[in-house]
Amino acid sequence: MKKNYLLTPGPTPLPPEVMESLARPIIHHRTPQFLSIFKEVCVGLKYVFATKQDCFVFTSSGTGAMESTVVNLLSAGDTAICVNGGKFGERWGKLCQAYGVEPVIVDVEWGKAVDPKVIEEKLKNTKPAPKAVFTTLCETSTGVSTDIREIAKIVNKTDAVLVVDAVSGLGAVPCYTDEWQIDVVVSGSQKGLMIPPGLAFCTLNEKAWKLVEASKLPKFYYDYKKYKASLAKNDMPWTSAISLIVALNSAFKLLQQRGLENGFKYYEVLADSVRAAALALGLELFADASCRSNAVTSIKLPASVDGAKLVKIMRDDYGVAVAGGQEHLKGKIIRIAHMGYINEFEIVLCISCLERILSKMGHKIDLGVGVKAAQEVFIKNSL
Amino acid sequence: MKKNYLLTPGPTPLPPEVMESLARPIIHHRTPQFLSIFKEVCVGLKYVFATKQDCFVFTSSGTGAMESTVVNLLSAGDTAICVNGGKFGERWGKLCQAYGVEPVIVDVEWGKAVDPKVIEEKLKNTKPAPKAVFTTLCETSTGVSTDIREIAKIVNKTDAVLVVDAVSGLGAVPCYTDEWQIDVVVSGSQKGLMIPPGLAFCTLNEKAWKLVEASKLPKFYYDYKKYKASLAKNDMPWTSAISLIVALNSAFKLLQQRGLENGFKYYEVLADSVRAAALALGLELFADASCRSNAVTSIKLPASVDGAKLVKIMRDDYGVAVAGGQEHLKGKIIRIAHMGYINEFEIVLCISCLERILSKMGHKIDLGVGVKAAQEVFIKNSL
Repeated sequence: MKKNYLLTPGPTPLPPEVMESLARPIIHHRTPQFLSIFKEVCVGLKYVFATKQDCFVFTSSGTGAMESTVVNLLSAGDTAICVNGGKFGERWGKLCQAYGVEPVIVDVEWGKAVDPKVIEEKLKNTKPAPKAVFTTLCETSTGVSTDIREIAKIVNKTDAVLVVDAVSGLGAVPCYTDEWQIDVVVSGSQKGLMIPPGLAFCTLNEKAWKLVEASKLPKFYYDYKKYKASLAKNDMPWTSAISLIVALNSAFKLLQQRGLENGFKYYEVLADSVRAAALALGLELFADASCRSNAVTSIKLPASVDGAKLVKIMRDDYGVAVAGGQEHLKGKIIRIAHMGYINEFEIVLCISCLERILSKMGHKIDLGVGVKAAQEVFIKNSL
Repeated sequence: MKKNYLLTPGPTPLPPEVMESLARPIIHHRTPQFLSIFKEVCVGLKYVFATKQDCFVFTSSGTGAMESTVVNLLSAGDTAICVNGGKFGERWGKLCQAYGVEPVIVDVEWGKAVDPKVIEEKLKNTKPAPKAVFTTLCETSTGVSTDIREIAKIVNKTDAVLVVDAVSGLGAVPCYTDEWQIDVVVSGSQKGLMIPPGLAFCTLNEKAWKLVEASKLPKFYYDYKKYKASLAKNDMPWTSAISLIVALNSAFKLLQQRGLENGFKYYEVLADSVRAAALALGLELFADASCRSNAVTSIKLPASVDGAKLVKIMRDDYGVAVAGGQEHLKGKIIRIAHMGYINEFEIVLCISCLERILSKMGHKIDLGVGVKAAQEVFIKNSL
């Protein structure tokens, strides 16, 4: 009978329309019935990626789409700049290494964003010249937002391509593929796009396609040329995850109804409210003020509070799922997501739960001040 | 208002329990709630693979799992025997080529099964000695069943490993991994296992693990070592397709309730009924009598009948989806699946629809003789 609430940075809650779509009888993937849905999904993808380019759909986790960029763009022996400011940025370096690409790691302190000038400098001074710069739109492990627009300006002046992991954030925070001239963007289905995990996406521009033509790394399942050829026939090279595609179509209808920009503004208010609540409760925000993501907020916990225990109690005893810290942040932070099918009342209940458990765990708190601060943000923004 | 019926060889229809599971609110994948489900799924996988070994779960199509065997077992320059008797067998050769593995293609006439002695001969005479033999349990494109048991006996005498693509057929026809000593078996979710496409699986024995240790091909997403390490912690390396895993657990409960052997017998009766119906209608079966699969039946169409049109009319006008022929068989055969959540009444309605449309398309047929023949098989087998 206990109700469960999901405020984790992926998966995010499913709208009822998405759940209903998932429950429909399955249809065959090589039929006009399915292909008309797939066609709509392709339009929806262009909308959320803010691009006129084709978008590819993989049956995989976001990591699969990340891997697809490495194997399609590069060759063994190439160098590539990998921005590592968290668990997901770190993955770019590991992926490059697995494929014999020399990663030039730009280590960024967790909680801070990469300085675009460091990338500029690395692009100038790395020999052989880096073929790609791998970055993360929203580093879920730290709640940090990267200034992709500025980085794109820098990378655009070179022969390298900019690859953005937008698994976390696409559909929730700005990521204008065409306008910002981002060469390659990948994403996943279970965060801003509000469906279960299982699909991943990629879009790339002409500059990136030139690298694809030159790439010598072996590939098959993720081979962009196969996806491009299939897409020209409104199809996919392998059996697609039909039910997830149908669900994605339902999610896109909702996202299009609301409008991407309206969504960005809404999540900004939710993010503001969580930040205000945390500060009102005397807690510190983990991410630097200059680079806090509107997709997920990371909050430092008082040293006296066992963060792993707090997350467990909130989830298992109270049904409110938030994320804890990863790696060296284990037990030290909690992360509250505000992307996808999340609204202000779920923020209120999450903050109220946090207040109660902190209080229960012996941390002195004025019950209600977090909720009050959040509410004030809602009112100020006419929510 | 039109009712739709799915008798295609993947995807297969979803049981109501599976549809209901798919519609549930999403839960986070790194929680005790999900991991207890995943634990049950791992038990279910061992049951359907008939193995005591660990089974890995990939978020991918079946092709992804096929690729995983190539990149984990082999190195560039290796040779491997690829049995090519249809569209899926052909994929093994293409996969090997993409990764710099030299495929020794054993071409088998479509509709016939590979002669195990040919594999024995190729194993003896290929230099350098093949590291792997890639085969297909049920070649969906032709309706042919491969004698995996006999091939395993041959391959087991050599240093090569036997890899079986059981995407089509697992759970519907016998494939005893441990008893037959098959070194590597891969499968997918959308056929005998009765859930939507999106998950793929693999199990491998100690002999195959030795190849994994020696393999030099690059890999990351499909890296078996990562899956093994995660599984030891009851987890998966990447965000899994949560809703599909939950659905798979529901499907496994049904398969376990019925019993694997009972299922094999049931599908054999359904296959017999479709074959009897086709013959009674004066149609020829495409697959050789010695190797007809109990998962899918391929039926030759009269030269006067446009098979592509027949499939289209059955599906779009009557709601009965069967598969047509692929490649050079386009328009020449139809394929009726009898695996997964299919019962004898769906066979009856499919045959009745086939009778009507053949008749409509000008092919002389005694309406009802196909259905009668199918019914007689049901009665004879006490269904």
